[in-house]
Amino acid sequence: MKATFLYGAGDVRVESAPDPTILEPTDAIVRVVRACVCGSDLHPYHSQPAGEQGIRMGHELIGVVEETGREVRSVRKGDFVIAPFAFQDNTCVYCREGLQTSCLHGGWYGTPEVPGLQAEYARIPLADGSLVTVPDVDPDAVPESLLRSLLTLSDVYLTGYHAAHAGLVTSGSTVTVIGDGAVGLSAVLAASQLGAERIILMGRHDSRLALGRAWGATDLVRERGAEGIAAVKDLTGGEGTPIVLEAVGLLPAYEQAFGIVRPGGIISRVGVPQYEDAPVGFGSLFGKNARLAGGPAPVRAYIDAALPTVLAGTIDPGQVFDQSVPLDDIAAGYAAMNDRTALKVIVAP
Amino acid sequence: MKATFLYGAGDVRVESAPDPTILEPTDAIVRVVRACVCGSDLHPYHSQPAGEQGIRMGHELIGVVEETGREVRSVRKGDFVIAPFAFQDNTCVYCREGLQTSCLHGGWYGTPEVPGLQAEYARIPLADGSLVTVPDVDPDAVPESLLRSLLTLSDVYLTGYHAAHAGLVTSGSTVTVIGDGAVGLSAVLAASQLGAERIILMGRHDSRLALGRAWGATDLVRERGAEGIAAVKDLTGGEGTPIVLEAVGLLPAYEQAFGIVRPGGIISRVGVPQYEDAPVGFGSLFGKNARLAGGPAPVRAYIDAALPTVLAGTIDPGQVFDQSVPLDDIAAGYAAMNDRTALKVIVAP
Repeated sequence: MKATFLYGAGDVRVESAPDPTILEPTDAIVRVVRACVCGSDLHPYHSQPAGEQGIRMGHELIGVVEETGREVRSVRKGDFVIAPFAFQDNTCVYCREGLQTSCLHGGWYGTPEVPGLQAEYARIPLADGSLVTVPDVDPDAVPESLLRSLLTLSDVYLTGYHAAHAGLVTSGSTVTVIGDGAVGLSAVLAASQLGAERIILMGRHDSRLALGRAWGATDLVRERGAEGIAAVKDLTGGEGTPIVLEAVGLLPAYEQAFGIVRPGGIISRVGVPQYEDAPVGFGSLFGKNARLAGGPAPVRAYIDAALPTVLAGTIDPGQVFDQSVPLDDIAAGYAAMNDRTALKVIVAP
Repeated sequence: MKATFLYGAGDVRVESAPDPTILEPTDAIVRVVRACVCGSDLHPYHSQPAGEQGIRMGHELIGVVEETGREVRSVRKGDFVIAPFAFQDNTCVYCREGLQTSCLHGGWYGTPEVPGLQAEYARIPLADGSLVTVPDVDPDAVPESLLRSLLTLSDVYLTGYHAAHAGLVTSGSTVTVIGDGAVGLSAVLAASQLGAERIILMGRHDSRLALGRAWGATDLVRERGAEGIAAVKDLTGGEGTPIVLEAVGLLPAYEQAFGIVRPGGIISRVGVPQYEDAPVGFGSLFGKNARLAGGPAPVRAYIDAALPTVLAGTIDPGQVFDQSVPLDDIAAGYAAMNDRTALKVIVAP
């Protein structure tokens, strides 16, 4: 089969790889219907040292089950499924609490043991916990727009949802969302779904801001850094907002977040931090009793509730996909996301 | 009058200072009945550069009102009062939300404008918001033990309480408290009052650990660093605790906290951070969705509920004071706290 490899910064290649096979009795093999490129894929795309061994990329897919191991009970051949971006047993102590990204037996795609999902086929470990069936949908007979929205339940929409959930967004909340990428826009949509009354979206791209506006952003702030902080304070009587959703992962976005957050408020991060150390002392978080929350989204915890809203057309999060490429051209998709000519790229093998 | 000045690291002097006078119509002048030395006073005691101008130290007192400005309504001459360690109007938007340490018009003691409280008399700004009357108590006629417990409502007990409150301690909670100083022990007592079922106290001093045990600690861990983290994990089936109260303020204590906190758990800090940058990325907080909370305690928000429990003898937080000095000897009190021969020093002018 064909699969996507990263050989170093900027060096994405589609090459032949062995067809995946059942290795554990809890595995399933899935034929990929749609995969996509994630903002977090751009981090190794920027920084990966060149190497002779390529890394198998990708962690989002919708697909059709081809084969299951003998212990798999909840999915079977022919099922149309969504794979959350991490795999998990969905039965351990953390999974039962809704923190599946800390599953005792789970892990991440894109390792030598569990290759990435930007491919024609994929091996899904712990299939009972790691695949969610989409009932009564034939992927060959539904509109592309529905496929796109279903694919967002693998990661991007529910990562935005996690930002809002961990940020304690509720009815009437006032929220700033930092970042007009696909996760930031998803956070706007999720905050809106959770009843936020005022959503200030910070970004710089007109078309993205327009989608944010359509999804519930009430205010747009194009400035960043100190000017951006001042602009949000101007909009909020000098206070800042009690909730800040940080959907970028770079240090300047975090610095913007603690500048904006209102005393006693909460910063919720879902952009994978490209830093380890950051300000948390008296001058940033501590002095104003600001709280910090967030992390890798436990998509599996949210997917059951979100799926019916997508199937009913209540939300249409698939609008984050503004470019489609065949698997053979996925390198062009990475390049388009990297140079911001695409918001998010969907891949049809 | 006599007052305490810090002229540089280790250089505490009691010298004459002008008697305070009413500067604003919202001021009160208070005769100090008891003051004390705070763990946070030790930070400048360690690091303050030598200077010709001494800094007026102290931010905790109980005392008797001597004089009030013409706009003061809630206290009057002769009232026995507690001063929370920050001053505040107790009417602004943040005060009304219970975050008085972010008061729009408040501030800290120990500045050129608002001198510290380790003195014979003190000027208290915004007296209506910054003083709490202790009803029906004559400070000259009650036991020293009650005075000590009342003084803890100025800072140390309610700072420990804030740690527990911000850490969302509730009935049945499992909590680790890092630090067996006066704040850490207060956090144990507060967590116990809030119903925590299991309290692991980390410290190294037998007498302090014994008080912690008396106040509700169920487990004592003497190791620190990696060994301390391993010890707490051993006690908790490998998971760590969902709540960690960090009552030290030094980076190693924070590092211990994120090592101990269970995935999805919360670290609540009340030790004033002696660092600005610290780990918050994938390997510390983010990867396991750990949350960070805490800051300067809004003592004023908690004092009305705590005062009756002290007056009734339900709690006796004044036991943190294990040494008493007259104001003239306060330098010896600083030294005793600094070399850990005293847990917390009370000062009788």
